[in-house]
Amino acid sequence: MKRIGILTSGGDAPGMNAAVRAVARKAMAEGLEAYGINYGFAGLVAGDIHKIEAADVDGVVNQGGTLLYSARYPEFAHEEGQLKGIEQLKRFGIDALVVIGGDGSYHGALRLTEHGYNTIGLPGTIDNDIPFTDFTIGFDTAVNTDVEALDRIYDTAHSHDRTFVVEVMGRGAGDVAMWAGVSAGADAIVIPELEWDMETIANKIKHNRANGHRCNIVVLAEGVMGADEFVEKLSQYGDFDARANTIGHMQRGGRPTAKDRVLASKMGAYAIELLLSGKGGLAVGIQNNQLVTHNMLDLFDSKHKAELSLSKLNEEISFH
Amino acid sequence: MKRIGILTSGGDAPGMNAAVRAVARKAMAEGLEAYGINYGFAGLVAGDIHKIEAADVDGVVNQGGTLLYSARYPEFAHEEGQLKGIEQLKRFGIDALVVIGGDGSYHGALRLTEHGYNTIGLPGTIDNDIPFTDFTIGFDTAVNTDVEALDRIYDTAHSHDRTFVVEVMGRGAGDVAMWAGVSAGADAIVIPELEWDMETIANKIKHNRANGHRCNIVVLAEGVMGADEFVEKLSQYGDFDARANTIGHMQRGGRPTAKDRVLASKMGAYAIELLLSGKGGLAVGIQNNQLVTHNMLDLFDSKHKAELSLSKLNEEISFH
Amino acid sequence: MKRIGILTSGGDAPGMNAAVRAVARKAMAEGLEAYGINYGFAGLVAGDIHKIEAADVDGVVNQGGTLLYSARYPEFAHEEGQLKGIEQLKRFGIDALVVIGGDGSYHGALRLTEHGYNTIGLPGTIDNDIPFTDFTIGFDTAVNTDVEALDRIYDTAHSHDRTFVVEVMGRGAGDVAMWAGVSAGADAIVIPELEWDMETIANKIKHNRANGHRCNIVVLAEGVMGADEFVEKLSQYGDFDARANTIGHMQRGGRPTAKDRVLASKMGAYAIELLLSGKGGLAVGIQNNQLVTHNMLDLFDSKHKAELSLSKLNEEISFH
Amino acid sequence: MKRIGILTSGGDAPGMNAAVRAVARKAMAEGLEAYGINYGFAGLVAGDIHKIEAADVDGVVNQGGTLLYSARYPEFAHEEGQLKGIEQLKRFGIDALVVIGGDGSYHGALRLTEHGYNTIGLPGTIDNDIPFTDFTIGFDTAVNTDVEALDRIYDTAHSHDRTFVVEVMGRGAGDVAMWAGVSAGADAIVIPELEWDMETIANKIKHNRANGHRCNIVVLAEGVMGADEFVEKLSQYGDFDARANTIGHMQRGGRPTAKDRVLASKMGAYAIELLLSGKGGLAVGIQNNQLVTHNMLDLFDSKHKAELSLSKLNEEISFH
Repeated sequence: MKRIGILTSGGDAPGMNAAVRAVARKAMAEGLEAYGINYGFAGLVAGDIHKIEAADVDGVVNQGGTLLYSARYPEFAHEEGQLKGIEQLKRFGIDALVVIGGDGSYHGALRLTEHGYNTIGLPGTIDNDIPFTDFTIGFDTAVNTDVEALDRIYDTAHSHDRTFVVEVMGRGAGDVAMWAGVSAGADAIVIPELEWDMETIANKIKHNRANGHRCNIVVLAEGVMGADEFVEKLSQYGDFDARANTIGHMQRGGRPTAKDRVLASKMGAYAIELLLSGKGGLAVGIQNNQLVTHNMLDLFDSKHKAELSLSKLNEEISFH
Repeated sequence: MKRIGILTSGGDAPGMNAAVRAVARKAMAEGLEAYGINYGFAGLVAGDIHKIEAADVDGVVNQGGTLLYSARYPEFAHEEGQLKGIEQLKRFGIDALVVIGGDGSYHGALRLTEHGYNTIGLPGTIDNDIPFTDFTIGFDTAVNTDVEALDRIYDTAHSHDRTFVVEVMGRGAGDVAMWAGVSAGADAIVIPELEWDMETIANKIKHNRANGHRCNIVVLAEGVMGADEFVEKLSQYGDFDARANTIGHMQRGGRPTAKDRVLASKMGAYAIELLLSGKGGLAVGIQNNQLVTHNMLDLFDSKHKAELSLSKLNEEISFH
Repeated sequence: MKRIGILTSGGDAPGMNAAVRAVARKAMAEGLEAYGINYGFAGLVAGDIHKIEAADVDGVVNQGGTLLYSARYPEFAHEEGQLKGIEQLKRFGIDALVVIGGDGSYHGALRLTEHGYNTIGLPGTIDNDIPFTDFTIGFDTAVNTDVEALDRIYDTAHSHDRTFVVEVMGRGAGDVAMWAGVSAGADAIVIPELEWDMETIANKIKHNRANGHRCNIVVLAEGVMGADEFVEKLSQYGDFDARANTIGHMQRGGRPTAKDRVLASKMGAYAIELLLSGKGGLAVGIQNNQLVTHNMLDLFDSKHKAELSLSKLNEEISFH
Repeated sequence: MKRIGILTSGGDAPGMNAAVRAVARKAMAEGLEAYGINYGFAGLVAGDIHKIEAADVDGVVNQGGTLLYSARYPEFAHEEGQLKGIEQLKRFGIDALVVIGGDGSYHGALRLTEHGYNTIGLPGTIDNDIPFTDFTIGFDTAVNTDVEALDRIYDTAHSHDRTFVVEVMGRGAGDVAMWAGVSAGADAIVIPELEWDMETIANKIKHNRANGHRCNIVVLAEGVMGADEFVEKLSQYGDFDARANTIGHMQRGGRPTAKDRVLASKMGAYAIELLLSGKGGLAVGIQNNQLVTHNMLDLFDSKHKAELSLSKLNEEISFH
């Protein structure tokens, strides 16, 4: 093994650059060469590939987004696309790859492994919705972005005795909402994994408002419904002077937090160790604070397990 | 004159607390007593009034929102409400007032002055839409909040070659949009004060995308239309992979910037000086970097003049 | 058990307020009353104690510092002080306590337990130097504060081809330095737990500067030596245009990160559960992402184990 | 005139990149070509010069530091150095220049003008110490960096009833200290422009501590003395549990604030307008919110006038 390819795929996440840097630098430390593949699998097929020198990843550890760009490319599900990608790998002399992205991108990674090109997957997504990892690269940053926004919203909620329903990202997972909600001292957190009831929420807000807590925040996971719809339904249970806010795409960007930088750095270096020991088709995760690997095939049959106890915790320590 | 009342009115804005503190402390420095009136004119009428000691405004210079709370109270337009307010002023021995808020709140302030209670108005709003002042308290903070959000959005726009239409606040004024847009390097800024044309914007984005600038940001003032509507109309001119984002109420909160704290501090102290020299019915502003006053009556007939040259500047220095 | 006392002790740390809130709210959720004890053990002895209502801890989850204040109070090591404290507990009807602070404060906590007042310790310190916990409350925030400072310093280092030696906190532990250093892409991290050699560091900087990486950052744990001294010693090996910076006390303040807020919230609620099940004299920790307890006595004989592998990781992925 | 050269000189300041971008883009908008000169006058003499394309300054408006690097180069004071620089200008066909930096760099700018190469100076420094401009590019960002640090320090000062002496930059000018001090609610601000007296400061702190304001912050301009020295002298007047902190070089870096980005953008575009109208040897400033120019020669005989009234304002509105 002499040359490693690196690509980012799916939605971008803060810390992807820290991961790219770690993969490339660790590769160099082991005497390998690193090649960047732009625009994910699309760029692989198109041959949008370039050598990464040590200086190329200087000063990127703190940058949001991905310097390798990202793109959706469903065509890679077909063998035709895969074979074109393999051709490019041959052309550039790349022996193995590291793919950073959501679990969607692991399908492509597994195909490459099956074609004889060992590929390791790193979990890069703000949604924290990948099985077999407690945390994904980008999650901590997105949560902190939300929390900062919620802190700001709290100021105005508090000044005006208002209720805010704030929609955060997470696709089908409630992790972002739970972490942001607990951190912001939300009155209620609504996530797709747990049953909830509008009347109960309305009653809690009423109870809280009647007892001196007149600024109320509901953190809503996007996987449940939109904030506007929620406000409309909530207002059927009373007048809470409620406003809908959707944090939106800013959750995907920004300088990564220390936790995301360290996690990305660890995982990136670990991916190279795995490749050097001849492994492929593995997804890296962090569980119980230890780096772990799982077979990608196993991931496809599994579902991410959110730390649902945070929901109960929030009920106990929010105003009541 | 022995006792000064202070209230905040209208939408809250970062820096209001710094202004309240400056008014109260300067009053104390001049041997006066300061009384806080909660919930604006509503609290005035209801007698929700309390003495402010020096320690009460310790540690608030850096807090968002308003510790005096704010509320809309259209009833104060009627003399009945005004007389109730006057009664409370008598009850608490308050001789003069400082009102911090948007120009809507200046109407109430003028009524109080006419009733013999000199009242000075300070421009507290993120919208920067008050006549006769270059800047309002809270504007700089809101712009920086937007810019931070736009920086984050840029990361993801750049990683994915996407177009983002980002709606910012400002009511009928384009100041927030222009400052945020220039700061973020927006491809286009759309404000209510200037004519614009969707086809021109679409063509600029097409031109830019064709020339290597593949992440595009349009900053849209809320006074024009909503971001969703804009994206829909824009997409009639081509496929820009466009996303709509609305920054929302987080723009109203957060720790004030240094500029807003200093501005609020200056204006707050100045209000007391004006009251001490027997003035009332005046709106404080900052023009050409100097504190100024204008008769509130004159404000009602005037319109804020935005620094529209920023729009042309942006056209010249954005990608083209 | 009816009344719980809460105090913070030792150096303040971001997230202490989130912990106080969680303890108090969880206590209320379980039908208990919560009492705040100001200024740590000093306030306990002096009887500076007050009831905490639900609203008292509203809006504090995001505040730095400690609303219960903190103080050093070595007198509590003597039985005389302890007995005075016990008297106050009786006077206020407090049955059990939660102490939030560094391991120094656990001595007092153990004494109270021995006197029949079950006390649980929560690890609140930015230094991450407490045995049997992977993370302390405040550590993540302090690291992010450092990283933000290092990002800023990188800008100027990069513009001027300079070397910066940046001293961070951590008392005898290198955790803050390692996390901040990896996150900032430091050329070198110097901590008290690992041997290091000035000539090796000087040679690495020389090598890096000769190979196109002309801005260099050394992150120095305070437990090693001061930044000025380090710069002086470094300059004996060459001219690196080096500057010394000490981040200082700002590392102790600021809004806590999401991770610290969640950790503090979990630990705070857990402390009440432990007290309810009749436990005392235990220190709460988080190990392998699980809440754990250890006997305080065991802590005093142990040493915190830093994740020293981060040091090797940094050598591999920093410029080389 | 066909080609414009741009360089940054002296200490870097946030917003320099926004200025470089504005100069380059405005030049392109006017049909000119822009050339970047690395490392200030040193790079000019060495011919470290390259063409700037529109895409080269994409995404730099929000970056700290200077992408053109900076360096001290006293040799440019001698005609020999100047003639070498002129040779390079001829070689690259550069007709006129924009120099961004402190007033030290204006000397070189004036020499180039005298040699027939019109040069405009833009005030780029965090110190705000340039005559004939109310604000320099970078000042607002540095002040906000300080204020954020002071807010953090306030948290810990407040938790521990401590006094902090915080040294901020500004070379011989007190502007940074005054803006940061007013914004942070400092008990005292000490600057080189105004007489002060340690006993008076000590007495104020004593008075404040005795009256319920037990966390005290003194903001100290570096032009007065170092923080350690100040703490030592202060402690001769009593025990204030005082700590010295020096914010250090982080004040020079970081993403520029909106105000600095807008100011840099305006000034950058204006510099091109001045060159197009045949002007040279002028320093751009902003006075009373208007862009202005002054002859560089006049600057050398003048001194920046700080807004000293902020000092009196702080006395009135800080705790007393």
